[in-house]
Amino acid sequence: MKPHALSALGRRIAEPPISWLMRAALARPGFISLAAGFTDNPSLPAALSRRLLNDLLRSPKSAQPALQYGLTPGELNLRRLTGGHLTKLDGQAALPPSGGKNVKTGTMARWDEIHSPERLMITGGSQQLLYMTVEALCDPGDIVLVEDPTYFVFLGLLQSHGVRARGVKLERDGLDLLHLESVLERLCKSGELDRVKALYLVSYFQNPTGVTTSFAKKAGILELLRKFGRAAGHPIFLLEDAAYRELRFAGADVPSSLLVRGAADRVVYTGTYSKPFAPGARVGFGILPEPLFATVQRIKGNHDFGTANLLQQLLARALETGLYDRHVAKIQRRYAQKARVMKQALAECFPSDVEIWESGGGLYFWARLPEDNPTGVKSKVFQTALTNGVLYVPGQLCYADEPARAKPDHEMRLSFGSASEENIREGIRRLGRVLRNIPGRKARPHPRMARRRHRRAVAGKGAGEA
Amino acid sequence: MKPHALSALGRRIAEPPISWLMRAALARPGFISLAAGFTDNPSLPAALSRRLLNDLLRSPKSAQPALQYGLTPGELNLRRLTGGHLTKLDGQAALPPSGGKNVKTGTMARWDEIHSPERLMITGGSQQLLYMTVEALCDPGDIVLVEDPTYFVFLGLLQSHGVRARGVKLERDGLDLLHLESVLERLCKSGELDRVKALYLVSYFQNPTGVTTSFAKKAGILELLRKFGRAAGHPIFLLEDAAYRELRFAGADVPSSLLVRGAADRVVYTGTYSKPFAPGARVGFGILPEPLFATVQRIKGNHDFGTANLLQQLLARALETGLYDRHVAKIQRRYAQKARVMKQALAECFPSDVEIWESGGGLYFWARLPEDNPTGVKSKVFQTALTNGVLYVPGQLCYADEPARAKPDHEMRLSFGSASEENIREGIRRLGRVLRNIPGRKARPHPRMARRRHRRAVAGKGAGEA
Repeated sequence: MKPHALSALGRRIAEPPISWLMRAALARPGFISLAAGFTDNPSLPAALSRRLLNDLLRSPKSAQPALQYGLTPGELNLRRLTGGHLTKLDGQAALPPSGGKNVKTGTMARWDEIHSPERLMITGGSQQLLYMTVEALCDPGDIVLVEDPTYFVFLGLLQSHGVRARGVKLERDGLDLLHLESVLERLCKSGELDRVKALYLVSYFQNPTGVTTSFAKKAGILELLRKFGRAAGHPIFLLEDAAYRELRFAGADVPSSLLVRGAADRVVYTGTYSKPFAPGARVGFGILPEPLFATVQRIKGNHDFGTANLLQQLLARALETGLYDRHVAKIQRRYAQKARVMKQALAECFPSDVEIWESGGGLYFWARLPEDNPTGVKSKVFQTALTNGVLYVPGQLCYADEPARAKPDHEMRLSFGSASEENIREGIRRLGRVLRNIPGRKARPHPRMARRRHRRAVAGKGAGEA
Repeated sequence: MKPHALSALGRRIAEPPISWLMRAALARPGFISLAAGFTDNPSLPAALSRRLLNDLLRSPKSAQPALQYGLTPGELNLRRLTGGHLTKLDGQAALPPSGGKNVKTGTMARWDEIHSPERLMITGGSQQLLYMTVEALCDPGDIVLVEDPTYFVFLGLLQSHGVRARGVKLERDGLDLLHLESVLERLCKSGELDRVKALYLVSYFQNPTGVTTSFAKKAGILELLRKFGRAAGHPIFLLEDAAYRELRFAGADVPSSLLVRGAADRVVYTGTYSKPFAPGARVGFGILPEPLFATVQRIKGNHDFGTANLLQQLLARALETGLYDRHVAKIQRRYAQKARVMKQALAECFPSDVEIWESGGGLYFWARLPEDNPTGVKSKVFQTALTNGVLYVPGQLCYADEPARAKPDHEMRLSFGSASEENIREGIRRLGRVLRNIPGRKARPHPRMARRRHRRAVAGKGAGEA
């Protein structure tokens, strides 16, 4: 097909790197993927969904609306339940049950305004909300700030829309605020501030690093966005992606940026039931500032008139009956266990110069080799891992394409989401072997906390595997 | 919000007229909507879906993939089944079981190539496929040819992308080919032919007119698009929307344009299980030419990584077990009955100068008043209908915005999809009263076949309602 039959978007859009990775994995039997962000198969809510759907479809009164078209922004009942669910999460996060001092949220709004069903939209996973928000805000040439590194599918989404991603340094408790300020200053000086539309933040157990942004940093980000928004002549939105929030197995929850004072006209908060419940019953949601809500709702109408009601009703019943909460508690324990398995395997099998970022939730460990040890798709490490039947996500894929710098290329995202405990152990063992045996890899001593912990762990347990 | 915070799309997108209509209806109790394109509530497959989901979620082997992420273009099993389903439809349409002579399809390709799962994508209703196809092909300022009138949501979709719709006259057996040629000639002369990306055709029981395009016309359209595509320097695609195809209750099926020789690189065919099965389990599909398929698949990845597997598996089971076919046969009988009810009510209650277009399927009657009788949203007819508790879709909304002409404004789309038989009768009666009593309405005699049929019908039946 001649290229000019396609739109600019059609010509720009690149194959997502994850597709290539998936195909590489599927083509090899016995392959272990530590790359996929899939969730744990055995803990998917099969019996639970069966029971809820059975009840739902038993009487015509509940079955008919579930099988019919509904409202574009989603069924009001699920929007109310989701608002209530967020109020519970944010309420508990702001007032830790330990009796410790309240998080200073600074908000004066009422909870039912903060998480109002009126501004809440149900979508086909949170991915669709991210897509529509970019459609509503960004023209080609516009700029979205992202964490460096960030969720690579979002980078691909921006790229397809001709939107420039600009990275902001990530620290262990979230964005580097000083760097954010300097990035905004620089854009101001270069006259590009009016092209900046949003900052995208994966705020809990970030993909790919596992980092959780503190509430203080969220407030700091919003303050900077507000300040520079004034200079830009229009709001710069904070797009908070909380996809992994409920996959928390250690530490206390952090309030969402919706609780920062004045967040109502600046924050787009997206969440999902995919990861804590079932990706196959894909339901996500977002809370949006009033005028943006109306625009995104119209886009949603053009996409699909609203997410499938059957899935919405399934989630509504799960929430109403309390079975959703019970399920989440169960999978939190499950992921805690899988994370322990991966942590121990990393401690046993990885060379000591690899720095491991551990997280209190989510699906990922972030492994950082010394800087001159490439891990990208064409690297010796990646290719040898592939021939040894194990796959990871190269860190490089998660960095914004910036003209001014080369992308860091010495990291790996390691997922314990979908692999079995046995495969996590075996995958990490294979990967460790690859890392130790790469000729020319410059292994250097590297301080690492996990190493010490590991010694205790192995000492106490003995190795179940060779 | 200052407008320049939004993208060009965000600023362009208008509230869909249907939302306004819905709200107008919902606000009034006792209201009868003959506007909504919803399907018939009592015949939704509640028991059937319950049974299939029950089986599906019983064993972990089938439950886990149904609740997990899947492939972006859809599950291979459902793609195969859908390809097979289309082969059956097109096969039967090309070779009528009556033993009559074969439709001359002219294709030389094998059925499994024509409906290949490799080029078939599963989407969130066919609407999402329409959306993504426009994204893949069209830039602002581009042109898409449409039937005049056409599906108004598609017009809104084009408008939001800054794409110009150009109408082609519609005859009772489909597009006016001479007019299509003259439209293309005109665009060629004005130097705009290279902006023409596609022709959009609702080919079966069209929304809003009920017209079905003959196979000969589909072949004629493709021939013209190919000829003018050569002049344009790139392919001009035929986007065939077959959403209503299976809601057929009279007459023989028509083969899709996929059966025209050389269709493989020009036709995007979209279909849906929403309307024949359940809008609440929203699953649609499309067959696309090879290179366009890859582009749309990438867009789909950015939208949502693929349609919810639970819904895909439900449809796959319905198709596999033959229960889908049985269900479709049942709803065909149901819509036949509802169409009969509306037809009889129209014959009894509508003034004789209103021309009624009757269809052998779908959800709509198309009522044409004499040309100087406006039916638009601001018209006396529409407003009086509203105060009398009945709603229709004004024909005006279904015409392309063309600078060169005023939109026709004397028609109504009347849906028998969601209203009960009683409400269809009552709604048409109210509307008939409105039409007869509008002061200043210029009623004139108008030849109409239905009137004669009606006399027979009433004579034989007696009126069940006052």
